Amino acid sequence: MENYLVLLTFLGAMAALLFAVITAKKVMKFSEGTEKMAKISQSIRQGANAYLKRQYVVVSIFFAVMFVILGIMAFKGFVTVYVPFAFVTGGFFSALSGFVGMKIATASNARTANACREGLNKGLRIAFSAGSVMGFTVVGLGLLDISIWFALLKYVFKLAPASITGAMLTFGMGASSMALFARVGGGIFTKAADVGADLVGKVEAGIPEDDPRNPAVIADNVGDNVGDVAGMGADLYESYVGSILSAAALGVAAFNGKFEAMALPMILASLGVICSILGTFLVRTKEGASQKNLLKALSKGTNFSAILIAVVSYPVVYCVLGAQNFKMYFAILAGLIAGVLIGQATEYFTSDTYKPTRKLSDSSETGSATIIISGLSLGMLSTALPIIIIAICVLIAYFVSGGAADANMGLYGISLAAVGMLSTLGITLATDAYGPVADNAGGIAQMAELPEEVRERTDALDSLGNTTAATGKGFAIGSAALTALALMASYIDKVKGIENGAEEIANLSLMNPTVLIGLFIGACLPFVFAALTMESVGRAAQSVVKEVRRQFKEITGLMNGEADADYAKCVDLCTKSSLKEMILPTVVAVVVPVVVGLILGVTGVVGMLAGATVTGFLIAIFMSNSGGAWDNAKKYIESGVHGGKGSDSHKAAVVGDTVGDPFKDTAGPAINILIKLLSMVSIVFAALVVKFNIL
Amino acid sequence: MENYLVLLTFLGAMAALLFAVITAKKVMKFSEGTEKMAKISQSIRQGANAYLKRQYVVVSIFFAVMFVILGIMAFKGFVTVYVPFAFVTGGFFSALSGFVGMKIATASNARTANACREGLNKGLRIAFSAGSVMGFTVVGLGLLDISIWFALLKYVFKLAPASITGAMLTFGMGASSMALFARVGGGIFTKAADVGADLVGKVEAGIPEDDPRNPAVIADNVGDNVGDVAGMGADLYESYVGSILSAAALGVAAFNGKFEAMALPMILASLGVICSILGTFLVRTKEGASQKNLLKALSKGTNFSAILIAVVSYPVVYCVLGAQNFKMYFAILAGLIAGVLIGQATEYFTSDTYKPTRKLSDSSETGSATIIISGLSLGMLSTALPIIIIAICVLIAYFVSGGAADANMGLYGISLAAVGMLSTLGITLATDAYGPVADNAGGIAQMAELPEEVRERTDALDSLGNTTAATGKGFAIGSAALTALALMASYIDKVKGIENGAEEIANLSLMNPTVLIGLFIGACLPFVFAALTMESVGRAAQSVVKEVRRQFKEITGLMNGEADADYAKCVDLCTKSSLKEMILPTVVAVVVPVVVGLILGVTGVVGMLAGATVTGFLIAIFMSNSGGAWDNAKKYIESGVHGGKGSDSHKAAVVGDTVGDPFKDTAGPAINILIKLLSMVSIVFAALVVKFNIL
Repeated sequence: MENYLVLLTFLGAMAALLFAVITAKKVMKFSEGTEKMAKISQSIRQGANAYLKRQYVVVSIFFAVMFVILGIMAFKGFVTVYVPFAFVTGGFFSALSGFVGMKIATASNARTANACREGLNKGLRIAFSAGSVMGFTVVGLGLLDISIWFALLKYVFKLAPASITGAMLTFGMGASSMALFARVGGGIFTKAADVGADLVGKVEAGIPEDDPRNPAVIADNVGDNVGDVAGMGADLYESYVGSILSAAALGVAAFNGKFEAMALPMILASLGVICSILGTFLVRTKEGASQKNLLKALSKGTNFSAILIAVVSYPVVYCVLGAQNFKMYFAILAGLIAGVLIGQATEYFTSDTYKPTRKLSDSSETGSATIIISGLSLGMLSTALPIIIIAICVLIAYFVSGGAADANMGLYGISLAAVGMLSTLGITLATDAYGPVADNAGGIAQMAELPEEVRERTDALDSLGNTTAATGKGFAIGSAALTALALMASYIDKVKGIENGAEEIANLSLMNPTVLIGLFIGACLPFVFAALTMESVGRAAQSVVKEVRRQFKEITGLMNGEADADYAKCVDLCTKSSLKEMILPTVVAVVVPVVVGLILGVTGVVGMLAGATVTGFLIAIFMSNSGGAWDNAKKYIESGVHGGKGSDSHKAAVVGDTVGDPFKDTAGPAINILIKLLSMVSIVFAALVVKFNIL
Repeated sequence: MENYLVLLTFLGAMAALLFAVITAKKVMKFSEGTEKMAKISQSIRQGANAYLKRQYVVVSIFFAVMFVILGIMAFKGFVTVYVPFAFVTGGFFSALSGFVGMKIATASNARTANACREGLNKGLRIAFSAGSVMGFTVVGLGLLDISIWFALLKYVFKLAPASITGAMLTFGMGASSMALFARVGGGIFTKAADVGADLVGKVEAGIPEDDPRNPAVIADNVGDNVGDVAGMGADLYESYVGSILSAAALGVAAFNGKFEAMALPMILASLGVICSILGTFLVRTKEGASQKNLLKALSKGTNFSAILIAVVSYPVVYCVLGAQNFKMYFAILAGLIAGVLIGQATEYFTSDTYKPTRKLSDSSETGSATIIISGLSLGMLSTALPIIIIAICVLIAYFVSGGAADANMGLYGISLAAVGMLSTLGITLATDAYGPVADNAGGIAQMAELPEEVRERTDALDSLGNTTAATGKGFAIGSAALTALALMASYIDKVKGIENGAEEIANLSLMNPTVLIGLFIGACLPFVFAALTMESVGRAAQSVVKEVRRQFKEITGLMNGEADADYAKCVDLCTKSSLKEMILPTVVAVVVPVVVGLILGVTGVVGMLAGATVTGFLIAIFMSNSGGAWDNAKKYIESGVHGGKGSDSHKAAVVGDTVGDPFKDTAGPAINILIKLLSMVSIVFAALVVKFNIL
């Protein structure tokens, strides 16, 4: 049976990749529209390509350095010889996920805009197909990487299960490092361009969004692709493989190396691929559909996939783990439901159809200060519900899996909840990734001066994207918390297997001062990280503002359309500053766990991981929800309430939205990756820390 | 020797109170100035009095309910019979501290303004004396309450040391509850009035700050007294007794009921009183002194007191604990130094003489959105240094006290560090409490139309108050974290003494799911609490805005000075809304620990306390420092840079300052109290939770 289970994972990977290729080919058959549209799309493509190429150059230096460090550690016996290679492939596949996503997104933006000239349904189909290509590429590459390494370590190098999962967690570290670079770099790029374009273009010069006279307009659209697409692709690749690998590792610990327990998360993921593919066929809508109908069309697909996986995983768990362990199924179910509920909580706090965002828009009446205060408190208050949902999910997952009798079983249950939550990532990511494509299509419609109705259609798609993005974030944040907890357990497990490790990690009580201090330091990291990334956005935006002001001043004839803006200069500026700014936060994330470990020892590291997971979860929700609510409050005012566009209320709401931009698109999502990367780094450097720590 | 030690505490209390009375009499001898000044001061006094009286009515209902609940619990044997009474006296003395502070502050504001007509030095002396009255009343009442209860329980009821400290911790809970009401209610009052006055007066009507035509101007000045004075008094009373009581309780645990270990924190506090009194005599400055000299004058006093207590506590520890335990001294020293360092870190991040606030003011050039983003990231980044300082302090305190061999000794060391940090509270609070007096004096100078130079002098005093407030906050936040840790240890200790308690609390490992979930829930509380208080400020401010607008519209002749504004209406409005709004946050703080305990059990409670302490510490620093930096960035711009008053940069900075107001004066300081109240409530309800919890 063992060999069949490995094959199943591989087949899941193939199914996902095949579906992605077929869908991509379908998308490419559509026309890019007028020559002007094709030209604009071409500029965006070139900018995004150029950015990613230069990002990969910078990142590869980091990977080369880490490869050498891990190589030396392997030579000294602190890690196995597979670790440096696993690290690099994890990074490679994560980068590839982002790259493919960017390729298809930049190829689909003009096609979506053109399809919107014909009708809303056609536009939705193309944008959603582009999102699907991205979603299934991510899960396909994830499963491919897992199955190749798995087969290699099992059949070629003939390692024991514990060594297999140990080596494979390293490629999680590679994936997480790459994801952090992509999220932070892309996030800084996109928000610097966005804030820069808005501050000078909209506020100072008074020209509309996406106006071709704005020199930062192409950079803004490039940003959507390198941040919201390539960054998100790398990010979710990391989440996906992280949850599967940590569950596999904990399965080995819980079932004393039983192969089936290690394979279960991979099998669930493969089944999730099939369920997701089936779900995509349900996404279609009638012409002239309202926004509500559009949302229904998307929900039909995701809900169908979720229910399907919930149904089929029952017999699977029963067969794979045996009758006496079928209760693990309820852990998976708890994860699946928790993901949906967190998504709904996010939607409640950030959508303008509910009270919180409506009340937020009311507070714009008394100016920008009050909308900022209200938005911050909305975000802070919105942390309570997800915390309770995750708490209940963890409790259920732990106790139904038999954690009361055997803690390892309980921890395996928690990790399976994370796998359950992400099992239908193919389709949830598709609904998420389609947003930036629609956003870009809107930009092209505006720049190519297409009729008003086209822009209205792309706006409808875009606005829907905000809601699905909220749901997607629910899954991303929820799974990050569960996976981080699972990785923490994997870390402890790993340390126990190291010489002297078991003694060192014996006292994990909160009354142990090293644990407590680790907790304080870990809890502080998301704050510092958020601060660093927000400051980076500020600095990068500042430079864009100056450049746009300069062009408005120096290029004669720009404002009346007689001369072209120098778009490339702004793209180049964003590229340079975001690449420069992304380095420090990532290095902090890699260095701190090692330093904390060397000073406080392994108990300090566990404290740090717990602290970072808990506040990271809170800060990520706080920032995402504040940002999302400000964005939608602004859109709600633009729909005509509180004086509509151009009113004082609207100006106040624009300030809120601008503050929210780095919140929701740079700092917030990067923290999800941070909390997992910290664990991965700790795991890889565990042996070193056990040997050389001071306290 | 035992009896002498108790007497020493009582003498310390008497010395502090006597010094407060003498200083108050000295202040009262000065003239209130012109009739107009006296009349304005009178209005402020009446408003503050009226507010406090109504606040006490509301609070006494809460205390009555709690008294009944605790009475029933005592009847059922869950708490001792002293607990309900201790609870009420704690609340009473805390309220009294705030009340006395408010009395002297409202009596000194016009006197300070009048003294400033003669010169800066005289103004400083009166304002500082008023602050001293408050500072020494707080410590005097704290020590008085402690020594009376101590004598009562020891000599009249003849309880064993463990029972004494157990009962006495309950009056900590009373003090904390009262402090939370005072801080939250006062904080909402002051910021609602401030924001309301600024938004309509300064921004909409374009009249200067403290202009008598502004209907909210008296409410604004009343707010300084009920928030920054009465609220702070109750708050620091709570910190002070909390640190002493938790140290006493841990001393009993560490030294197996040895009386001296219980008495040491009280003796240190008494010595601190003497050192502080001596320090106050050094606070004076030459006429025409620069702001730097003023600051030097204050620092001379606080530094002298700190060094003195550092010197004298060495022989004291040696004598009281014996030669074999003299190392505890270094724990005290670590606390003292950590307090100073956190204060300096706070000053670095919030004073406009350093880079961070200067850079923040630069970001006002690109508008309110960028100054908000930069201010938020400044606050978040500023958490790192205090975290590291506290981490090192905890490590030193734990290990020098012998925590490696006996955890109880280490925990006692941590609690002594908190006592060390707060030992010179008399003088640090004096330098802190003098700020609002100077602020009020400025308001009176403006309203009474005193010459420009008087206002300049009060402004110099006020601006200095911002810096000393920052230092004071360093002590308040740092000691809150240490005290909360000590209380957590006391809680565990308490549970171990309850039937079945020892088993229930055996597994405090971070891998225990109830601990982990408690951690998540606890970490979320400061976020929720901050959100609730900020929303309250928003709502209350909204109502003030409407009332001020109404008066401007309906009272004819108000703008050209022909008619008087209806000040009382605004005061009444602020009173009503702040009293209404203060209830929910406090009830949350009291109810949540009990509910969490009943569901998750005692391990869940410990997790919750750790989570709340850690994120509470972070959020309190973040919010205080962001708020302080925005305030000073605005003042820096008003000094003439970036276009000065009235420029676009200034407008952006005003938005920052308005957002910062509820940050630094409502939510931030209240969280310090919250984290201790949670522990106190948990301790009091421990027996109930052990018996009835579900998991």
